[in-house]
Amino acid sequence: MSDFNSLNVEQLKELKSKLQEEYDKFKSQNVKLDMSRGKPGADQLELSMGLFETEIVKKYLASDGTDCRNYGVLEGIPEMRKLFADIFEISSEEVLIGGNASLSLMFDMVSQAMTHGVVGSDVPWGKLSKVKFLCPSPGYDRHFAICEHFNIEMITVPMKSDGPDMDLVEKLVAEDEYIKGMWCVPKYSNPDGITYSDEVVLRLANMKTKSKDFRIFWDNAYVVHHLYEDESKQDKLMNILKACKEAGNPNRVFMFTSTSKITFPGAGVSAIGASIENINDIKKRFKIQTIGHDKLNQLRHVAFLKNVDNIKEHMKKHAEILRPKFELVLNYFEKELGGKNIARWTKPNGGYFISLYTLKGCAKKVVSKAKEAGVTLTPAGATYPYGNDPDDSNIRIAPSYPPLNELEKAAELLCICIQLVSVEKLLEMKAE
Amino acid sequence: MSDFNSLNVEQLKELKSKLQEEYDKFKSQNVKLDMSRGKPGADQLELSMGLFETEIVKKYLASDGTDCRNYGVLEGIPEMRKLFADIFEISSEEVLIGGNASLSLMFDMVSQAMTHGVVGSDVPWGKLSKVKFLCPSPGYDRHFAICEHFNIEMITVPMKSDGPDMDLVEKLVAEDEYIKGMWCVPKYSNPDGITYSDEVVLRLANMKTKSKDFRIFWDNAYVVHHLYEDESKQDKLMNILKACKEAGNPNRVFMFTSTSKITFPGAGVSAIGASIENINDIKKRFKIQTIGHDKLNQLRHVAFLKNVDNIKEHMKKHAEILRPKFELVLNYFEKELGGKNIARWTKPNGGYFISLYTLKGCAKKVVSKAKEAGVTLTPAGATYPYGNDPDDSNIRIAPSYPPLNELEKAAELLCICIQLVSVEKLLEMKAE
Repeated sequence: MSDFNSLNVEQLKELKSKLQEEYDKFKSQNVKLDMSRGKPGADQLELSMGLFETEIVKKYLASDGTDCRNYGVLEGIPEMRKLFADIFEISSEEVLIGGNASLSLMFDMVSQAMTHGVVGSDVPWGKLSKVKFLCPSPGYDRHFAICEHFNIEMITVPMKSDGPDMDLVEKLVAEDEYIKGMWCVPKYSNPDGITYSDEVVLRLANMKTKSKDFRIFWDNAYVVHHLYEDESKQDKLMNILKACKEAGNPNRVFMFTSTSKITFPGAGVSAIGASIENINDIKKRFKIQTIGHDKLNQLRHVAFLKNVDNIKEHMKKHAEILRPKFELVLNYFEKELGGKNIARWTKPNGGYFISLYTLKGCAKKVVSKAKEAGVTLTPAGATYPYGNDPDDSNIRIAPSYPPLNELEKAAELLCICIQLVSVEKLLEMKAE
Repeated sequence: MSDFNSLNVEQLKELKSKLQEEYDKFKSQNVKLDMSRGKPGADQLELSMGLFETEIVKKYLASDGTDCRNYGVLEGIPEMRKLFADIFEISSEEVLIGGNASLSLMFDMVSQAMTHGVVGSDVPWGKLSKVKFLCPSPGYDRHFAICEHFNIEMITVPMKSDGPDMDLVEKLVAEDEYIKGMWCVPKYSNPDGITYSDEVVLRLANMKTKSKDFRIFWDNAYVVHHLYEDESKQDKLMNILKACKEAGNPNRVFMFTSTSKITFPGAGVSAIGASIENINDIKKRFKIQTIGHDKLNQLRHVAFLKNVDNIKEHMKKHAEILRPKFELVLNYFEKELGGKNIARWTKPNGGYFISLYTLKGCAKKVVSKAKEAGVTLTPAGATYPYGNDPDDSNIRIAPSYPPLNELEKAAELLCICIQLVSVEKLLEMKAE
């Protein structure tokens, strides 16, 4: 189809009524679909039923003889630390195991920084007149929610195709001593699905910060979450802890990850990776906050996941389920929106999201129209600090949860809504 | 044996050399025993191996159809909330399920109060010039550690045979607006093993506090942890949430408990009970802090523990293992220390501890002498704020972990040490 921008008012009106008809027809089907969260589908959960196998479940002795049914072991059992160390590509001593989700590790880390500061802080962040975080956007709404909760001012930094706009990042952190942190989803980012380039990682590690206790919150949630087996289609991410050490800023980064989208979300194991000095500082809090995290779950996870090579094999099975879903949506976009000059979208090699950008000022309307017809998307704006997308353009698509047939319906409706709202927008513009 | 106080110097010296000989003999055996923490023994852990049974492990659907392998359910699954509600004797809506240990719930609650305040706070506690907590003592060292971590000033309140000295508590909270909280282990208290009387509970619920956002942290860790089947030897604790509601102070109390000493410590399930208004306030944080706690573990626990009646049956099996250990220690004390007027000790009907009080100024020396001969006890003073027992008299005995034969050795040594240190003390006093 031709570029919508080349259509005249008559043509647009005609198109609008045709699209409205399609929309009404869809709406009358009373479907109810949810594409709002990056939630694995039930068939993905089946891949980890091995966690329930008797020989795995009945284990309770760690490799060092620890009885995992009893108190003790603050850092996590050695074999679990080793496995996450291999995933992070750091040493076991640089890893602490957390509870069932890395989000809590991040929240607690920010909370601790507010009440106690981090290594190198003169005062707890909460004692300062203000605290600011850089928020590459679009980004992960739950990161932004943590900032709002602690009254941390968020500064939106645009995302480029290889990570955050580093010219701006470098300028901001060099000038503003109140910028204490920065959120990053560096691999298969939420929601753009892009991976930070080596240059971006190196600049993050090396940049001069006015604040001496600045921290990067490196949420590597999709570290092994490739969609393609072909290695040329697997994004590589530089090891930021190593880069920070080499830059003389070893304490700059907190790395997070979890097995949430490897095994069972909410019943998995999380981990934090950082310099020994940071780890020791976090352990001081762990000693007070917890009697140690669930070692039986750690043991089950190590027994089931075994090692990084085996995780890669396991993740291929996830990819086999996810890939057709991503491709279905992308093909739909190509077929229905291609060449029309009303939207662009990302084509990620991994992760859980596709990011779609509408014409300016259309995202909210598209999401609301879709909702009205029974398809729930992530609220427009949610991927920006304070829920405010300055262009009102980004829509996060989470294709993982619905089965293929439902996903097709949802993609169909989404494309109708995007076209309809775009046509309305173009008509408005022509009327002005 | 006769009262040591009635012995003359010659007799004391003779006794001392006899005890020193026994001590040296013990020491030469090179034993290594640990009675420092309230940790269940391996035989107690065996009681919950049913948690590993296939039909329990393979469950993943909650009673309301929730797939517990996936994201969701912030409050905990309904059947788990119901079970803890029954334990707390409150309604399900007044319960939130936490992670693997109630200590983290307590830490997080204090942390939230510092950064955000509680229902009714004018400002977050951390914004005040100081915050103080009442600490009935001897008490639980980990409670005191949380206060130290957040720089909360601790005020020691003496324990009486039916709970904290309420005359003092009432006076302090009525006068001092900076007293924001109070720690309580109200049933089979750590370490005295006493249970608060109805009068104490009612006075706590009804007392006037100068601070309008004062909170009682009600750590009901030993709620079903009786040592005796005979109901006349089972302590009863009044429902403080009910009492607080009736007193017009519904938001005054946060109740905590967990399955740590019912099933597996560190791999259990924790819960908080409070007024709906408090629960809603905590949920606001939960929404930001967590994607929900481990629902599979909740499901396993409900499937294994079933209901309160079944928990009572299960706890009888724990009691059968623990009772002989408590009785062994108590009999040893009676036999070796009885009538000598150098120590008194508690005889609890439940919980995990016996509290022993030496002559003033002797506890540290006893613990250090025992350590020297291979028996680790909880450090003297640990049961008081800042590790400071003003009388240097309280020793916390945790008889649960060692097997009976080892426990006997430990009790034997402990009695030698107490007598030896007491004789030295009496000789010192006579020399003055």
